[in-house]
Amino acid sequence: MTPENLFWIGFVGAVLAIAFAYVQSRKVMTFSEGSDTMKKIAASIREGANAYLRRQYTTVAKVFVVVFVILLVIAFASNGEMLSKFTPFAFITGGVWSMLAGFVGMKIATNSNARTAQAASESLNKGLRVAFSSGSVMGFTVVGLGMLDISIWYFLLHYAFHITDATTLANIMVMNGMGASFMALFARVGGGIYTKAADVGADLVGKVEAGIPEDDPRNPATIADNVGDNVGDVAGMGADLYESYVGSILATFALSAVAGYGFSGMLLPVCLAVEGIVCSIIGSFFVKTKENADQKSLLKSLRTGTYLAALLSALVAAPLTYTIVGNWGVYVAILAGLIGGCAIGYFTEYYTSDTYAPTQKLAASSETGSATVIIGGISLGLKSTVASILIVAAAVLISYFAAGGSLNVVDASGLFTAEFNKGLYGIGIAGVGMLSTLGITLATDAYGPVADNAGGIAEMSGLPAEVRERTDALDSLGNTTAATGKGFAIGSASLTALALLVSYVDIVQTKTAEVLNFTLTSPTVLVGMFIGAMLTFVFSAFTMSAVQTAAQSIVVEVRRQFREIAGIMEGKSDPDYASCVALCTKGALHEMVAPALLAIVVPILTGLILGPTGVVGLLGGVSVTGFAMAVFMSNAGGAWDNAKKYIESGHHGGKGSDCHKAAVVGDTVGDPFKDTSGPSLNILIKLCSTVSIVFSGLIVAFNLMNML
Amino acid sequence: MTPENLFWIGFVGAVLAIAFAYVQSRKVMTFSEGSDTMKKIAASIREGANAYLRRQYTTVAKVFVVVFVILLVIAFASNGEMLSKFTPFAFITGGVWSMLAGFVGMKIATNSNARTAQAASESLNKGLRVAFSSGSVMGFTVVGLGMLDISIWYFLLHYAFHITDATTLANIMVMNGMGASFMALFARVGGGIYTKAADVGADLVGKVEAGIPEDDPRNPATIADNVGDNVGDVAGMGADLYESYVGSILATFALSAVAGYGFSGMLLPVCLAVEGIVCSIIGSFFVKTKENADQKSLLKSLRTGTYLAALLSALVAAPLTYTIVGNWGVYVAILAGLIGGCAIGYFTEYYTSDTYAPTQKLAASSETGSATVIIGGISLGLKSTVASILIVAAAVLISYFAAGGSLNVVDASGLFTAEFNKGLYGIGIAGVGMLSTLGITLATDAYGPVADNAGGIAEMSGLPAEVRERTDALDSLGNTTAATGKGFAIGSASLTALALLVSYVDIVQTKTAEVLNFTLTSPTVLVGMFIGAMLTFVFSAFTMSAVQTAAQSIVVEVRRQFREIAGIMEGKSDPDYASCVALCTKGALHEMVAPALLAIVVPILTGLILGPTGVVGLLGGVSVTGFAMAVFMSNAGGAWDNAKKYIESGHHGGKGSDCHKAAVVGDTVGDPFKDTSGPSLNILIKLCSTVSIVFSGLIVAFNLMNML
Repeated sequence: MTPENLFWIGFVGAVLAIAFAYVQSRKVMTFSEGSDTMKKIAASIREGANAYLRRQYTTVAKVFVVVFVILLVIAFASNGEMLSKFTPFAFITGGVWSMLAGFVGMKIATNSNARTAQAASESLNKGLRVAFSSGSVMGFTVVGLGMLDISIWYFLLHYAFHITDATTLANIMVMNGMGASFMALFARVGGGIYTKAADVGADLVGKVEAGIPEDDPRNPATIADNVGDNVGDVAGMGADLYESYVGSILATFALSAVAGYGFSGMLLPVCLAVEGIVCSIIGSFFVKTKENADQKSLLKSLRTGTYLAALLSALVAAPLTYTIVGNWGVYVAILAGLIGGCAIGYFTEYYTSDTYAPTQKLAASSETGSATVIIGGISLGLKSTVASILIVAAAVLISYFAAGGSLNVVDASGLFTAEFNKGLYGIGIAGVGMLSTLGITLATDAYGPVADNAGGIAEMSGLPAEVRERTDALDSLGNTTAATGKGFAIGSASLTALALLVSYVDIVQTKTAEVLNFTLTSPTVLVGMFIGAMLTFVFSAFTMSAVQTAAQSIVVEVRRQFREIAGIMEGKSDPDYASCVALCTKGALHEMVAPALLAIVVPILTGLILGPTGVVGLLGGVSVTGFAMAVFMSNAGGAWDNAKKYIESGHHGGKGSDCHKAAVVGDTVGDPFKDTSGPSLNILIKLCSTVSIVFSGLIVAFNLMNML
Repeated sequence: MTPENLFWIGFVGAVLAIAFAYVQSRKVMTFSEGSDTMKKIAASIREGANAYLRRQYTTVAKVFVVVFVILLVIAFASNGEMLSKFTPFAFITGGVWSMLAGFVGMKIATNSNARTAQAASESLNKGLRVAFSSGSVMGFTVVGLGMLDISIWYFLLHYAFHITDATTLANIMVMNGMGASFMALFARVGGGIYTKAADVGADLVGKVEAGIPEDDPRNPATIADNVGDNVGDVAGMGADLYESYVGSILATFALSAVAGYGFSGMLLPVCLAVEGIVCSIIGSFFVKTKENADQKSLLKSLRTGTYLAALLSALVAAPLTYTIVGNWGVYVAILAGLIGGCAIGYFTEYYTSDTYAPTQKLAASSETGSATVIIGGISLGLKSTVASILIVAAAVLISYFAAGGSLNVVDASGLFTAEFNKGLYGIGIAGVGMLSTLGITLATDAYGPVADNAGGIAEMSGLPAEVRERTDALDSLGNTTAATGKGFAIGSASLTALALLVSYVDIVQTKTAEVLNFTLTSPTVLVGMFIGAMLTFVFSAFTMSAVQTAAQSIVVEVRRQFREIAGIMEGKSDPDYASCVALCTKGALHEMVAPALLAIVVPILTGLILGPTGVVGLLGGVSVTGFAMAVFMSNAGGAWDNAKKYIESGHHGGKGSDCHKAAVVGDTVGDPFKDTSGPSLNILIKLCSTVSIVFSGLIVAFNLMNML
């Protein structure tokens, strides 16, 4: 059997993953949703989330149609010269699958929150199992849909349209990433604005001004806050990681062709993904503890599952890699990716968990007020980039050189050497290796917001304090495991971005007769780098100020309700939850379009003005600055959140003290950092690359510098 | 007369500038220092500043001796192969001149503050004249010493050591920049930590906790705060701009040789600088108004002076440039630099002045508390990078192409084309053009801290409220003009950094037999870029947390004095000012060494591990990220400061309101942004470049990648 005929294995993986997700979702649904109050609250959250996502998808659909038509015109007007005729359709399917991944995650999460609260009222362990199963549904749906998308397109192109040349096929498929990235960016940004506008709005008036606890039913923004967890942390994250997963595999496809591995090199990432799915399923059976286990043993059981899956996956990858591409160096690259992901995860935890010195020191800085908390958090986040960047640097160099790369990057004619292409394939496959067990790492990540919601429902429906304590324990556990998940996502994003950058150069080079020069000292490259850094900064600014704009409208509304609805503070009359939900929806939809369009418009404009060399500079600039910024924002935000929790657990005067108030300011600033701007930057980096690749034909044909 | 024998003109410029500075300083000293109380306070500030600078120079001297010995060993052990034997000595002289520039500025500033307060008690215009004269002393001393340094070294090398080859001479001279940059970094970082630790410490306890006004004599940190203005905003800025001025000229020297302009291309920046000095002197005669002028006409008179100088300088530059290098394109490059600097200054003002929407909107965000002020300021700062980056991008492209650059960057053998080198010379000279009228722009910048101090003295010595109002008006005027000054400094830094980056490549290339490849897609270049971004982030973190550490010790001390010294709040007993001064000194000296060493160690280590291609990546990464970060931090900090002042002037509830309290948090966070981390980043970028150039011989000889 030749490798090109073995891609049915992708379907096997997809079926396995989706079947497992289905079984898990049936399991969750057998649990009770609890009392009528709980059912009612859960229903409002479900409704709010449904309504938001429906409207979000409607808005996004319009943008997709516009881009689709533009792509269609370019592809058919140039008769496939400037753009493959498949690309417009691949753009749509990528978007739809990515949307679906987020939607399924949201569906199960909003069905699991009350069930988790109810289960937690029986035991901590039972609560964990419901929440974790819900997380698994999302985790395995993401990887299953990803495999399905890749496999379907492969079969379509290879068997229905008879594209038998590996390079042509890979170059068409790598463009599929654009739809997924674009959808993911909308989902992350829109969801991120929604969730943080609600959260910040609820906290600013409720916690800080009125002095009522979090999730208090008297707070009009509390339902919106819980809806936000589902549309941002669940649906947004699902779309995001779908994009990362598919993106890393497709980037490796493109590199395989140029590295001379042909279909074998494309089969390898698919096989890695499939064996990763199997290992993740096995690992998830090990996530269980005795009844009435404490938090430490819960963490241990989650860890056992993920590490076991990673270890198994690493072991299976060895013979697999050698059989498929016959090169042990490539296996070293995969290991470098896997270990790099774990290492970034560890350092993310080190910098953001309150069991380590940095966050404890940050909590201590609250003694001198909120300004020092802010300065402390910013410098903590900036410092934390050292670990992540050194790890990525090491992973890049190890995977490159192990896979056969050398210092000779270009040959005498200015084209990439064969060794360079082999090394680059190593970087691409390292990114795939990092994400191979995404099924289970995402499950441990996605269960967090469910636990968070469960806590909200417990509070609002007046369940006993011990239930809230248990859901809080689950939630805080989720924060720790989420750190590891983020490490994998961010690490793979940087490797995928580098792989896509080189794919871009390859694709552009085949389209032009002259040898293009991408020397860093070239003024167009340098200016491109400046533009890339600028894009990162302005994108972060847009997403942050979007949260602020949306949050301020919530603040005004909550204050109005406190003032105008008589008896609200005594709990005698109900607040108007729906108006806050509607405001968040409106705000998020209104604010999400501009930053998302930036990611499309800036690379195209740069290309049209500066040409391909400017685009390469931009991609380099946005990859490097975006990565550093994403790590900074995520870690600063995480540390502020946990510093506040650390104080709440009784340090520095505990809840209600001046230190606590100072820490709440830090947490509020950190919210858009860690849940809106930071995670969106990962997607921005890759979207810029795929947009550049898709429009490369246009840019090679028309650019100002060439015409002058 | 051949151009190589015309460099005596540098001495003429130096003598003119220094003579003018001397005359101005005599003029300042004729004014009265006011009452005995004022004299006493001024003396304490002088003493504190003197004591700090003495200790700072002692500490820095030790580091300089270590680096000097290392350079000496490398130069003499390799018999000048790895490093010119002149470099160790040039390193020392560069440092000494830079130090002297800052020291003279501090001397005159501490002698002018009480005099300004006293003069302001007579009229606003009189106050302005004293303060502006004091600023002129510093401005012209900086440019005078810069010209002196360059001229002396030129004469020494050319006439005493008979180095008649332009390339050799330029390559030796470009290394002189390292000493100046290193000294400047210490002065900026150390001074920046001092001033902001004192300021933050004084504000946190005095204004926020105890509720006493700024500069209240009961606040034990108030003298330290005033000392800080002199050692940070004056001595630090002097050393910083000395470095920028000399750096831009020397970078152009290096590029002139490779661009084929030889001694003519080196003479041009010297002549530009000299005519700039003359134009600045002329311009400064126009800084005067009628007695009892209002603030608007004061601003107009300052503007008249600077714009007149710039315009004159631009006019004179036209025939000068054509005569010396015979190329109108080079003149366009100079204009691009000059206009670019003004444009960046304008946008800096737009984003940070409370007469424009952004800062007013920021002030309005205080309505919803300190968290939204922080988020708003961060996103304002991030957004503001768009204007600066687009302007620099335009300046780079215009100056490059106008001066003869083309898209063909390297020739068939991989070496830079003649057109590329010509274009690069354009970028270098644009940087010089931007700084040619530094004498007067720095004067308008340096007078700000003097006015600030004068206000402090007026408050502490109980002068009538109207005097304080006048000094406040002068101070706020200074904030506006400082924005323009910062625009020039930051813009020229980016152009100089790019010029130095290419000089590095040129120098390294001549030292290696094989053609080095600096393609952006090369893994070592990419990893270098990541390291560059990391260096920017971690440097910012170090400087910020240094301020925090030092400020916290001040907070503790001030609280202790309020608690332990009986009658302090009633004004019956004096606080112990000296202990705060001593604490700031200790803190600043302790914390400044690590970030300064980073800038030396990271480029060398990167070179030793990754080789020259990694270093080029690092320089690209640090230039791009550092520039964006510097603009972000400076503008965010400036906007927070002015948003607070806007509220204090009666908006959103005015002084003491909740909005004001929220704005004070923003201002406190912004302090290290705008006065410590932000401005230091300019120097970091250039220090990395010169360190890389100086150690290039070592790195070419020993690096891991080459040895593997």
